[in-house]
Amino acid sequence: MSIQKPSIPKGTRDFSPAEMVRRNYIFDTVKEVFKKYGYLPLETPAMEYLETLLGKYGEEGDKLLFKILNSGDFMQGVQPNGNVNALSLKICEKGLRYDLTVPFARYVVQHQHEIVFPFKRYQIQPVWRADRPQKGRYREFYQCDADVIGSPSLLNETELIQIMDEVFCKLAIRVTIKINNRKILSGISEYIGETEKITDITVAIDKLEKIGEEKVFAELLEKGLSREAVRKIQPLLKIAGSGREKLDVLAPILSHTASGSKGIEELQAIFDSLDGIPASNLIEFDIALARGLNYYTGAIFEVKATDAEIGSICGGGRYDDLTGIFGLPGISGVGISFGADRIYDVMNQLCLFPLETEATTEVLIANFGGKEAGYCLSLCRKLREAGIRTEMYPDAVKLGKQIGYASSRNIPFVALAGENEIREGKITLKRLSDGEQQALSPEDLIQYLKK
Amino acid sequence: MSIQKPSIPKGTRDFSPAEMVRRNYIFDTVKEVFKKYGYLPLETPAMEYLETLLGKYGEEGDKLLFKILNSGDFMQGVQPNGNVNALSLKICEKGLRYDLTVPFARYVVQHQHEIVFPFKRYQIQPVWRADRPQKGRYREFYQCDADVIGSPSLLNETELIQIMDEVFCKLAIRVTIKINNRKILSGISEYIGETEKITDITVAIDKLEKIGEEKVFAELLEKGLSREAVRKIQPLLKIAGSGREKLDVLAPILSHTASGSKGIEELQAIFDSLDGIPASNLIEFDIALARGLNYYTGAIFEVKATDAEIGSICGGGRYDDLTGIFGLPGISGVGISFGADRIYDVMNQLCLFPLETEATTEVLIANFGGKEAGYCLSLCRKLREAGIRTEMYPDAVKLGKQIGYASSRNIPFVALAGENEIREGKITLKRLSDGEQQALSPEDLIQYLKK
Repeated sequence: MSIQKPSIPKGTRDFSPAEMVRRNYIFDTVKEVFKKYGYLPLETPAMEYLETLLGKYGEEGDKLLFKILNSGDFMQGVQPNGNVNALSLKICEKGLRYDLTVPFARYVVQHQHEIVFPFKRYQIQPVWRADRPQKGRYREFYQCDADVIGSPSLLNETELIQIMDEVFCKLAIRVTIKINNRKILSGISEYIGETEKITDITVAIDKLEKIGEEKVFAELLEKGLSREAVRKIQPLLKIAGSGREKLDVLAPILSHTASGSKGIEELQAIFDSLDGIPASNLIEFDIALARGLNYYTGAIFEVKATDAEIGSICGGGRYDDLTGIFGLPGISGVGISFGADRIYDVMNQLCLFPLETEATTEVLIANFGGKEAGYCLSLCRKLREAGIRTEMYPDAVKLGKQIGYASSRNIPFVALAGENEIREGKITLKRLSDGEQQALSPEDLIQYLKK
Repeated sequence: MSIQKPSIPKGTRDFSPAEMVRRNYIFDTVKEVFKKYGYLPLETPAMEYLETLLGKYGEEGDKLLFKILNSGDFMQGVQPNGNVNALSLKICEKGLRYDLTVPFARYVVQHQHEIVFPFKRYQIQPVWRADRPQKGRYREFYQCDADVIGSPSLLNETELIQIMDEVFCKLAIRVTIKINNRKILSGISEYIGETEKITDITVAIDKLEKIGEEKVFAELLEKGLSREAVRKIQPLLKIAGSGREKLDVLAPILSHTASGSKGIEELQAIFDSLDGIPASNLIEFDIALARGLNYYTGAIFEVKATDAEIGSICGGGRYDDLTGIFGLPGISGVGISFGADRIYDVMNQLCLFPLETEATTEVLIANFGGKEAGYCLSLCRKLREAGIRTEMYPDAVKLGKQIGYASSRNIPFVALAGENEIREGKITLKRLSDGEQQALSPEDLIQYLKK
């Protein structure tokens, strides 16, 4: 075979050790918080049957599924003429998962008799989308989801808000946690007399922050809302104040709409329960928060970083009937999803990764070859037994090269045990930051490095 | 859309929380050891270009690659007649990775100017193979690899043996670590006068343990080896004793073959370096160990569990020119791969998972609704702040149901804070194992649970 210039498919990435260490810092932080709140880990296969995935993400989503060619003679009995989409479904029965929510719903239905409800699960796995790659948008990326399924209690919403607050607090990212309720949006469309236009209204006012009031109203008119309806919606989007103050203004306005009052009541209960448990970040009731996904039916969340210009870094909400499509109706769920890639970008931009995440190996033992190598191997073993991450340079090359390796790997110390040191039962420890050296016994070396 | 009975593609698996906790125990143990030896994490994309993957795993391997259908109009300009294999390459440019070694080689070549050599990396990711699914063989499974690339030193082999020893020691699996050297196998084929039959010899004697001596010799004859050659090989496979004793017997026999002597010398150096660093498990020189993969050129390793009837649970070896195919010749590497699925099976069978891996949440706060809920939420927060994994039951249902939930989730304690408890500033803590109850102040509760 001829020599190939290696590359990877566009929209995919290799994660170098330096990037992995930082990404793992994010994942570990999120996982630790999930666990503290009793969420259990789950993993589903990368491949799902296409019939599990199709029709769950809208027409656009269907097009973005990666399909896997059937093994063996995939063309057997297949007529290649006609529609390319229809053909693809004949030669592919599997696809790569597009998100973690649909596989989770599929899992819950498939294993409903083994699961103890309420079922709190977290799932951190890659997903794949055949989107056009662009800055910050990838064809393979990780999602970090936590969902509770089988409990209608609003305490779940409260808990997820606490989790978002705690994760970003631990990551040292200042955020605003925005919250709204789909029922309030329904109430608003009922109040303005445009109940059947709820989707258009949702889509338009979701863009408020991005495109401004003027354009949102123009879009609403374009979608066929009456001038009267648009006039009625204007003051609602301008209601200011704290979450409770906004609720107090909105409550009487929506009091004649069933879903509006229910939404207000739900949000009030969430704010009430948050009273006794102060959050580190601002929790804001945002009437214009709508979120695209149509399966949300109750609370919706979205998190924005205060100090970085970037889209939402976490989001979620309650969905009342996600498992219905798989034959298990009436199971309510609520969940959130952290955007690891954007969180990574924010933390990089704001220099929020702790220095410790850079250091991997704590000490490099230099290799002088011959007899010394045996001594050093046993020293390595002692250091590792004491829990110190230790490397021995494998080749007996020039010391300068070995120190260069340590330095480029961010290893803070190099231990030297040559003929003299071994005779005196000492090791010379060199600190690379300032070049300082000291002679230590093996025991003192361990004590020194363990501090 | 009609209601679907949910299922997953054959050969793939969901990992339930109980399985995940056990699998993570294995992965975390392996990772911790890798890190202690200075290996750095790396991740590569699930999808690689087919040209990166094809031709690396033999003809059989090529057939087992999962191919991904090109997006959009994949049939444009494609003639569907002719060979199905040729067609698949026209409509698919990407495939799912088949192992972690080839993507690693691709990564090293692609990023050769950023990498500091020797490069020690570990990689724990799933791989996909369109194999016929059967017991213990899956179409999606995880590999846990550690490799050093860019250092010819045998200390790397020694270190990888230490790593295997330490991992299985930590997992409490008793094992034998088998070691051999491809150069010894070459030396043997030269010594018996069948140098060009090295592959047939390797394949045949690799089966010694499985099919017995008789059948191995029959296969060798069938492959065209002379009776004289088979007669000469017989005593070699019977050499007994410790690693060093076997080497002492074999050394003079292979002394006239260049590669045989080199192989003996390399193994001797490895045993020498292991002298000062006693292992917990038996390290055995197995002349019949061959390992299938053709890219190995030096040391080869394989680990067998002592107390379970199962194939090898870890294996690896040195390969002198893996990156050559991607345009970077002469870079030597050595690596090992842990078989997570088999390790899981062995540990399950021998009941080796520690009990702690079962416990997730440490205490469940019962939900009595109303005012009590607010008190309990703030109690939850205090417990979590103290690092105690805490859940509050989200719904104010009957206490029996809540205790049943704790019990089926293996949560050891349920904390009750009803009206009376709150008035007295106490919490009733119920231990589920024996039903014992005690009244504690919040502070005492934290102290008690932290023990």
